[in-house]
Amino acid sequence: MSQLTNFTYDEITIGQSATYAKTVRELDIQLFAAASGDINPLHLDADFASQTRFGERIAHGMLTASFISAALAMKLPGPGCIFMEQTVKFRLPVCIGDTVRVELSVIEKQDRRKTVTLDCKAYNDNDKLVLTGTAVVMAP
Amino acid sequence: MSQLTNFTYDEITIGQSATYAKTVRELDIQLFAAASGDINPLHLDADFASQTRFGERIAHGMLTASFISAALAMKLPGPGCIFMEQTVKFRLPVCIGDTVRVELSVIEKQDRRKTVTLDCKAYNDNDKLVLTGTAVVMAP
Repeated sequence: MSQLTNFTYDEITIGQSATYAKTVRELDIQLFAAASGDINPLHLDADFASQTRFGERIAHGMLTASFISAALAMKLPGPGCIFMEQTVKFRLPVCIGDTVRVELSVIEKQDRRKTVTLDCKAYNDNDKLVLTGTAVVMAP
Repeated sequence: MSQLTNFTYDEITIGQSATYAKTVRELDIQLFAAASGDINPLHLDADFASQTRFGERIAHGMLTASFISAALAMKLPGPGCIFMEQTVKFRLPVCIGDTVRVELSVIEKQDRRKTVTLDCKAYNDNDKLVLTGTAVVMAP
């Protein structure tokens, strides 16, 4: 059993980075649909999805974006951090079975509120960018 | 059983709006944690959360943000739309039992790629803003 650790505001440095990877399971799409209420057939209905430009079901964009939330909460800054802002651009579809690797990098620290700005990139198994964005969190 | 309908790009007008509401259940937080891998104790551990500024467990910010995804996919433009970009600012915590109401309003249409920009606001039961942001989607 691994121990979760975190980085306090003072411990965080510009350029510090962290990685979090997760494979998108069929189940994850169903759990996300149930939690959010987003039952867009593009994610849940194979027949519908086969008629779209993607040709198959894709993961909810916000499910992939939620892996950023996990990366922030579990890796950098880690447990206890508070999510303030997020921007995301969805660049490529993510399919069932794809492993998404989120890479975080600290680009700015704001002393006044002890907030940290992180560049966020997510890649698929082929090292193609699937998502880019920026997060602002309050460090623990 | 209600029928899902959608609005095509040509049918969408500037100023068009839609609302989607969802109550945050204990279960939703657990489902979101499982789907995302985000097991920040602020969301899952009552003892830990009681020691924070919030005094109790709060919903993952990205869970609340996922209600925007649901509003886009279920209401405006509706099923078949493709999520391109999202910005969110988390303004107030959302707790278990809170009903979050997402209000979408079309602020721009881009003919070139048939994309639509929507203002996104989410309110709690007391009509306080919990989240603001902007979404860009490709209409069906």
